[in-house]
Amino acid sequence: MLNCGVHLKIQCEYIGTKYVGFQTQIGQRTIQNELEKAISRYFAAPVKVVGSGRTDAGVHAVGQVVSCLCPREDVKIYQFLLGVNSYLPSDIAVTAAEILPKFNARSDAKAKTYIYKCYVSPTRHPSMDVDHWQLYKPVDIERLRTQAQVLVGTHDFTAFCAELRDKSPIRTIYSLDIQTPTPHEIWFVIRGNGFLHNMVRIIVGTLLEKSDVQAVLKSRDRRRAGKTAPAKGLTLYNVEY
Amino acid sequence: MLNCGVHLKIQCEYIGTKYVGFQTQIGQRTIQNELEKAISRYFAAPVKVVGSGRTDAGVHAVGQVVSCLCPREDVKIYQFLLGVNSYLPSDIAVTAAEILPKFNARSDAKAKTYIYKCYVSPTRHPSMDVDHWQLYKPVDIERLRTQAQVLVGTHDFTAFCAELRDKSPIRTIYSLDIQTPTPHEIWFVIRGNGFLHNMVRIIVGTLLEKSDVQAVLKSRDRRRAGKTAPAKGLTLYNVEY
Repeated sequence: MLNCGVHLKIQCEYIGTKYVGFQTQIGQRTIQNELEKAISRYFAAPVKVVGSGRTDAGVHAVGQVVSCLCPREDVKIYQFLLGVNSYLPSDIAVTAAEILPKFNARSDAKAKTYIYKCYVSPTRHPSMDVDHWQLYKPVDIERLRTQAQVLVGTHDFTAFCAELRDKSPIRTIYSLDIQTPTPHEIWFVIRGNGFLHNMVRIIVGTLLEKSDVQAVLKSRDRRRAGKTAPAKGLTLYNVEY
Repeated sequence: MLNCGVHLKIQCEYIGTKYVGFQTQIGQRTIQNELEKAISRYFAAPVKVVGSGRTDAGVHAVGQVVSCLCPREDVKIYQFLLGVNSYLPSDIAVTAAEILPKFNARSDAKAKTYIYKCYVSPTRHPSMDVDHWQLYKPVDIERLRTQAQVLVGTHDFTAFCAELRDKSPIRTIYSLDIQTPTPHEIWFVIRGNGFLHNMVRIIVGTLLEKSDVQAVLKSRDRRRAGKTAPAKGLTLYNVEY
């Protein structure tokens, strides 16, 4: 692989609906694959990207960050963005890029923010269908807010993990805010140093279903937690370095 | 047609992207057609709907209102909403309904609010692609706000009309607010007693392109106004009765 010794930090946005997830899987449409094809085509050289983390099938991003070794030193960022975007499908775009002496989107990530969006209505709302989960019945927002605070801090999140892929189930949640941007919408805005597999979606499912989140957390038993909320409501909002 | 003497007032929401507009055209996919098929199927009787107005090809709605003669008197609204929604495609939904002794969605409409959404960015943003118009260069918001006020009030809007379909080109704009819900978004929120063909989209194009909107208005000459902004940015937000 060509490498001039510098790295590219690339921010990207995508609608995950039509992809099996971020990470490359043979014979499947993935975000990573599309990004690598477009960036390689722009540089006319094979490029592999590293994402800040894998987003699951159907999960969206407005602030995913990926990195790669840069095949050239004289990259004009504006040209790069326009060029790569012209090679990407309409549901994926690169929105910013930067050249850095050294940068790894995964290992350098300090914090991530996800937003999980729901709307409450007995009827469908097509304008929110792509990136919201529909809840049919009203939700007690104050109860959600109180229970959400139980999860803030450093904890063993085994109960909120689909499958342990890393060494440790300990993570730190810096904040978990329940926002209501419109009267029918509920957003779970969660910022942490990292998240276990399906952790945000299990947290959302549990907050909506269970009354004693403290007991679920302490049990370290996935069966005590709520259902995994559907992927379509989840958006990777921001990654901090 | 069956008719028990009462009327249905139905609110609906749709993503206009895949439709040639609201109004029925033979052999084409239209919103009106899909609504009539679904409502007729629910009642097992042919139903024709009247819309508050026609939205053009590609224009969206979150608060369109349609009316029809009701084939039955004993309509259970909740059942009706669930039933009709199950017969509609995923990009159209009915969101509320009401039985009224007399109601015509077109002639009873007192005011309508449209929102035209833009975002400013040199790169594409897939999360806003469906219902925003992308502007590549920064816009002077204060200039927009000042020029927008010129159009508020009762005027001859001939310069802002693609094709005069009604008797009079006189319309009243009650308010035209320029909002910036996020740092990169510009929303034109326009409320009036009615709008000429393409009027909102020509107003948006003109406000973005021209510096002397007063002169354009007074000219009553379509050629003096700006381009028609693309349909995809426009959403019928609300109809008042």
